[in-house]
Amino acid sequence: MALEYDLLNENVKKCQYAVRGELYLRASELQKEGKKIIFTNVGNPHALGQKPLTFPRQVVALCQAPFLLDDPNVGMLFPADAIARAKHYLSLTSGGLGAYSDSRGLPGVRKEVAEFIQRHMFVVTVCFPHSDPELIFLTDGASKGVMQILNCVIRGEGDGILVPVPQYPLYSATISLLGGSLVPYYLDESENWGLDVNNLRQSVAQARSQGISVRAMVIINPGNPTGQCLSEANLKEILKFCYNEKLVLLGDEVYQQNIYQDERPFISSKKVLMDMGSPFSKGVQLVSFHTVSKGYWGECGQRGGYFEMTNIPPRVVEEIYKVASIALSPNVSAQIFMGLMVSPPKPGDISYDQFARESKGILESLRRRAKIMTDGFNSCKNVVCNFTEGAMYSFPQIRLPPGALQAAKQAGKVPDVFYCLKLLEATGISTVPGSGFGQKEGVFHLRTTILPAEEEMPEIMDSFKKFNDEFMAQYDNGFGYSRM
Amino acid sequence: MALEYDLLNENVKKCQYAVRGELYLRASELQKEGKKIIFTNVGNPHALGQKPLTFPRQVVALCQAPFLLDDPNVGMLFPADAIARAKHYLSLTSGGLGAYSDSRGLPGVRKEVAEFIQRHMFVVTVCFPHSDPELIFLTDGASKGVMQILNCVIRGEGDGILVPVPQYPLYSATISLLGGSLVPYYLDESENWGLDVNNLRQSVAQARSQGISVRAMVIINPGNPTGQCLSEANLKEILKFCYNEKLVLLGDEVYQQNIYQDERPFISSKKVLMDMGSPFSKGVQLVSFHTVSKGYWGECGQRGGYFEMTNIPPRVVEEIYKVASIALSPNVSAQIFMGLMVSPPKPGDISYDQFARESKGILESLRRRAKIMTDGFNSCKNVVCNFTEGAMYSFPQIRLPPGALQAAKQAGKVPDVFYCLKLLEATGISTVPGSGFGQKEGVFHLRTTILPAEEEMPEIMDSFKKFNDEFMAQYDNGFGYSRM
Repeated sequence: MALEYDLLNENVKKCQYAVRGELYLRASELQKEGKKIIFTNVGNPHALGQKPLTFPRQVVALCQAPFLLDDPNVGMLFPADAIARAKHYLSLTSGGLGAYSDSRGLPGVRKEVAEFIQRHMFVVTVCFPHSDPELIFLTDGASKGVMQILNCVIRGEGDGILVPVPQYPLYSATISLLGGSLVPYYLDESENWGLDVNNLRQSVAQARSQGISVRAMVIINPGNPTGQCLSEANLKEILKFCYNEKLVLLGDEVYQQNIYQDERPFISSKKVLMDMGSPFSKGVQLVSFHTVSKGYWGECGQRGGYFEMTNIPPRVVEEIYKVASIALSPNVSAQIFMGLMVSPPKPGDISYDQFARESKGILESLRRRAKIMTDGFNSCKNVVCNFTEGAMYSFPQIRLPPGALQAAKQAGKVPDVFYCLKLLEATGISTVPGSGFGQKEGVFHLRTTILPAEEEMPEIMDSFKKFNDEFMAQYDNGFGYSRM
Repeated sequence: MALEYDLLNENVKKCQYAVRGELYLRASELQKEGKKIIFTNVGNPHALGQKPLTFPRQVVALCQAPFLLDDPNVGMLFPADAIARAKHYLSLTSGGLGAYSDSRGLPGVRKEVAEFIQRHMFVVTVCFPHSDPELIFLTDGASKGVMQILNCVIRGEGDGILVPVPQYPLYSATISLLGGSLVPYYLDESENWGLDVNNLRQSVAQARSQGISVRAMVIINPGNPTGQCLSEANLKEILKFCYNEKLVLLGDEVYQQNIYQDERPFISSKKVLMDMGSPFSKGVQLVSFHTVSKGYWGECGQRGGYFEMTNIPPRVVEEIYKVASIALSPNVSAQIFMGLMVSPPKPGDISYDQFARESKGILESLRRRAKIMTDGFNSCKNVVCNFTEGAMYSFPQIRLPPGALQAAKQAGKVPDVFYCLKLLEATGISTVPGSGFGQKEGVFHLRTTILPAEEEMPEIMDSFKKFNDEFMAQYDNGFGYSRM
């Protein structure tokens, strides 16, 4: 029969997605058995207690129940600006949240996204090429957008995509699924996960020597799992590189609101590209991704995202539109969340103070948690960790002693999987082994989110330290660490 | 650069999706220019004025705004059973609607779906193989589920999928996109779009003679665009055929609530398969699809669906789970809609009467509209139309006179596209040409939904008749019709 393992599409079998891989499955089992699990395997803030922002939820609740808008008592449960916004968004639909929208998303919301991108660049000159709603597609989360674009680019295993290592495994999994070739470029851990353009050149040269045509490059900024923010100078180098090598740049910017230091603010690839001017600003193909799942929103379960295309020819945009049409439309309530994210309450609005208080509270707490976590890891034996400049993750290096490597081998496990499984069994902390993201050979990491509730953080880090230091004491037989 | 038309993935370029194709794009243009358009190109009931069912919207609104549950005034806007159900569904999540669920969907909702499938079969014996929540995956609409399964089955152009003609173009488009081969089997218009197993055999034999390995078969029951309901005897033949030919059966049953006659009720492939007993009940691989977009719900924009797998080995289920994980989770609010669809209010519940009144009202009106439409088409010159037994569409045959074929040729259009464009320009009625679904050569159709508001239906049919009869008078030069 067709759905037998041996007969499945090999690309399906090949792809790996560690964020919900062996560790997650084991954690789910343990949870079923009654063990308390701290799920830090995926950036899923609400699952760890983060409260949703009130205003957007009020607006979307009203859009789901539009009959409330005619109820004389509606004002007892909803503020007037939420009511007004719900009416506004309903007016952008044809038939409310239950009707398919255009396959690119509601035109009115795409217009709000375009205005947001425009504002974000602080550019007001008339000659500036405006962000165009027709080049913005709303998606069921950013992942779906990435998959749509890669599906257009990848024709077979001869097509290579430059992907950072370590990387978020959406990229490796999607490239496998589509039958393309992942071309890795390494981020430099000793330089705070910096990106060296010379490494890029080497990666491309090596891929070409193997007959691979490199067609696109992925950057994740701020980095996942690595947490670094790319500087403007670095982004310029990357864009020049893409221009020279004729690569489409996929800019994964889903963590753009998650910044935990002031030295290196988020700066979008689009802004840098536009500032570079001719010939780059019209010569580099760029697709930028954003989401409602991250930032201080954390509305993962709503599945809302967008991508914006720059310098993509109309005929190609049409093809992308056509393929998006097959699944008819992204879910409409998440489109409204996206509208709200790009046009939140303004000073003077009834809900502004509460919205500002809530969002500030979340971001400030994340900033403190980033620090607690980095410091906690760096206080552990054989653990070193770069500071999380942005995004939602900590990616400590775990220097496993030879005894641990041997024990892992005996258990038939990759060393970092072995470590993470032991950690899970001992503490309930569910992480993702660094091998799921890619790392240099012989170097081991784990990824954890910085999302556990702030008040639980000290206890979690204590519990981690206790486990780690005992683990190291058990396996450290004095013969030295695994090499850096 | 990589995203140039000439360099795109050829499979992307090849796929066609007529439901949002040339006609839809032209209709959107005309709408922008201020023309009143009646969008009957896609089964999108709320866009044509169907009101959402109140109870599920109340529940989901409360789930979006869980803080209302603590508000002493909540009872002024929401009935007690909606409040209780919202609490129930929130208790099935870990973190509410903003948290990713398991990639298969919330376990609690999948359990409710399994119970629904079980109830639906009216089987209570202990020996009956229960529907298993672990074999039910929730999806962002049924289309996404179909794409997931076909992605596992199709390895390349040597893999063929049997698809009815006429068919819903989701299938042809997805098969193109995945690089497989569509193997058509023709439904018999003169037998009310019946399915003859001898045709299936011929289709398979012909495909094999071309070196294609036929691996799966699609049935759409009730039919889209054709509206027929498959009889139990017919389903048995199909299942035996799949057993003998070792084909996975994909049962698209999204219109199972949309039945407009009493002679041929909907019967699920799963029920027939289980009733057939050994060796079939354990020997046929079946994947069944359902949705919240159709029925009397029509919640298209929410993007909720599920598929249930029967006789699929655990190792394959794991692979499907892994691939689903890459996009993390289907949207959670649509999962709640699915839960509500499979466990609606029961007699005695506060909201039961309203729910029953609303759902009955929608279904009875659809039944009347199916009849008005069929009769309307059959009153037109050169138009013949089978009755819509189920689903949401009417698929009249348009017998185009030679003059019209010639005019179409001169305009560079496929004849049915030519007709539908003229219809659109003259009346604002946006349909889909039959060529978008496949039809026998030289025979022409169009698909329209039966969804326009009942009170507008007579006027729409008058407007259609006026256009059609004038069109026929213009082009009918007495040399006879196009052949049947």
